[in-house]
Amino acid sequence: MIDRQAMADARALEDRLTKPRGALGRLEDIGVHLAGIAGECPPPVPHRAVVAVFAGDHGVVAEGVTPWPQEVTAQMVLNFCAGGAAINVLGRQAGAEVVVVDVGVAAELEPAAGLLSRKVRAGTRNLAVEAAMTDDEVTQAIAVGRDVAAALVDGGAQCLITGDMGIGNTTPSAALIAGYTGRPVPEVTGRGTGIDDAMLARKVAVIEQALVRRRGDLLAEVGGLEIAALAGYLLEARARRVPAIVDGVIACAALLAAADRDPSVVDVCIPGHRSTEPGAGAALEHLGLSPLLDLNLRLGEGTGGVLALHVVRAAALVLNEMATFDSAGVTEKS
Amino acid sequence: MIDRQAMADARALEDRLTKPRGALGRLEDIGVHLAGIAGECPPPVPHRAVVAVFAGDHGVVAEGVTPWPQEVTAQMVLNFCAGGAAINVLGRQAGAEVVVVDVGVAAELEPAAGLLSRKVRAGTRNLAVEAAMTDDEVTQAIAVGRDVAAALVDGGAQCLITGDMGIGNTTPSAALIAGYTGRPVPEVTGRGTGIDDAMLARKVAVIEQALVRRRGDLLAEVGGLEIAALAGYLLEARARRVPAIVDGVIACAALLAAADRDPSVVDVCIPGHRSTEPGAGAALEHLGLSPLLDLNLRLGEGTGGVLALHVVRAAALVLNEMATFDSAGVTEKS
Repeated sequence: MIDRQAMADARALEDRLTKPRGALGRLEDIGVHLAGIAGECPPPVPHRAVVAVFAGDHGVVAEGVTPWPQEVTAQMVLNFCAGGAAINVLGRQAGAEVVVVDVGVAAELEPAAGLLSRKVRAGTRNLAVEAAMTDDEVTQAIAVGRDVAAALVDGGAQCLITGDMGIGNTTPSAALIAGYTGRPVPEVTGRGTGIDDAMLARKVAVIEQALVRRRGDLLAEVGGLEIAALAGYLLEARARRVPAIVDGVIACAALLAAADRDPSVVDVCIPGHRSTEPGAGAALEHLGLSPLLDLNLRLGEGTGGVLALHVVRAAALVLNEMATFDSAGVTEKS
Repeated sequence: MIDRQAMADARALEDRLTKPRGALGRLEDIGVHLAGIAGECPPPVPHRAVVAVFAGDHGVVAEGVTPWPQEVTAQMVLNFCAGGAAINVLGRQAGAEVVVVDVGVAAELEPAAGLLSRKVRAGTRNLAVEAAMTDDEVTQAIAVGRDVAAALVDGGAQCLITGDMGIGNTTPSAALIAGYTGRPVPEVTGRGTGIDDAMLARKVAVIEQALVRRRGDLLAEVGGLEIAALAGYLLEARARRVPAIVDGVIACAALLAAADRDPSVVDVCIPGHRSTEPGAGAALEHLGLSPLLDLNLRLGEGTGGVLALHVVRAAALVLNEMATFDSAGVTEKS
């Protein structure tokens, strides 16, 4: 899918720009990557970017894996729609539209501006004791993600950023990352929004139990509705050849699930931020990806992805706007 | 100088915003820092930012420490004024004005839009054999930096970013960093814009020789005109209580020189990017600072600083615009 010629053209262009070769570091690599995705050099600048925040609840909260009450998922959806959450602030700054998708919130949500109601089910089942979703529910949730991405790209989006909200969702994410990477559960399980040692031990035990219990598709057994939707969102970005910025640990789990279905999905993905959650690093390492930013964020919502958008745009702008040695009359090194 | 009460207020406000405590990581730390600099909470958002690119030449190029001809300094100044360099592209993206200051270019420069002619001398003397500058020249160059910063702040700049251009300037920077930090020269000397092993060995030998030869003020003996000007620029940012984003290895050397004159200059400085030059890391470690970005840049010009501006603005916006748990009706964790 990646256009090798466009990448070679971009690398050659980088070398003619008025700077020492390679001096823009990762900006140059990202620029070449964007050219490969778009199949043209210079690549288009992703002025129009959207972060889709997929929201869902998790039956596993019954196991006491988080100190936050489940109602916070719905409350935060309202906060997103009112523009008061971190993702709204950072989205406005970056000129990235925020779209919120209810794919599995365990509460009835009133219609609101910017909210898409695509609920597959009012939260997953408790993955500690049974499959979180049926295969059919997974298929539906993936389809929601694909539909959202397709509509956004049809509407002009040039870059898709992953966002997520769901109390308890670092538990299914860690379970998926352990399952897909084969890493031990304690290595990929973190403190999420801030839990103590006892709760962390319980979280690890719940995930280990679920992975032993598991019989069918990993995503259905231990995943989440918003995670499945994010997997679909990334698969559609791949199908449309649109760069996708992958945010934190939830998005990393979704990317592993997407890559399990189509490994070439990774070709369009740019990891935005190294979450402090250990599973995020493990997932990215497994996929051979290195995140652009490392700011100790552990919020989710797409916040790290939107911050990385500035860097991704910069990479495209360099290829589109910088002068060459010839055009600027600058002497090259001897 | 730092306002501890404003910092405490900002930390308390961060904890009421609709996110888990500490979940925005370094954005929260920078937000608190900005409040401390400004003496108010929330701190002003630095919408108006300027990168001043101080340009100067270096007599030490006679020693063969760089493969780039000295005329490139003047050519790049013209490129800056024409808008074709990396700093122009990234400055436009970030909404940061680019100002170019000739404080020591070894060529006559025609007047150009955006170029301030404040030449102290047409390049430094060769630091390998004699003091690069007289004490009076250092004083003049520092005054240029202070004047530029003062005029920019008087004109409304809310954030000052360091920029630099000067063929050969990683040599005086490494010499200053070795001198101020006490670290061995080979540890803090890098390949600059890309030199081979033989040239690197020569560069190390030249710096070691200069530090042995040195008798007077370190900045005068082994520094540069643009480095002295940058030191003045940072000292004035400190005097005006304006946040300053410190770019790469040249700016780190200037910050050490400024801190040698007034250690409190560090209070207003935010390190933007971890240059691949080893001296930059050594200088920041010596000052107890940790850079925001790590994108393998080694270009200078202020490019890493301007990219970091997005993160600095984000930190201020979070404190100014996010909803609190109370205002958004979101339940806190148990």
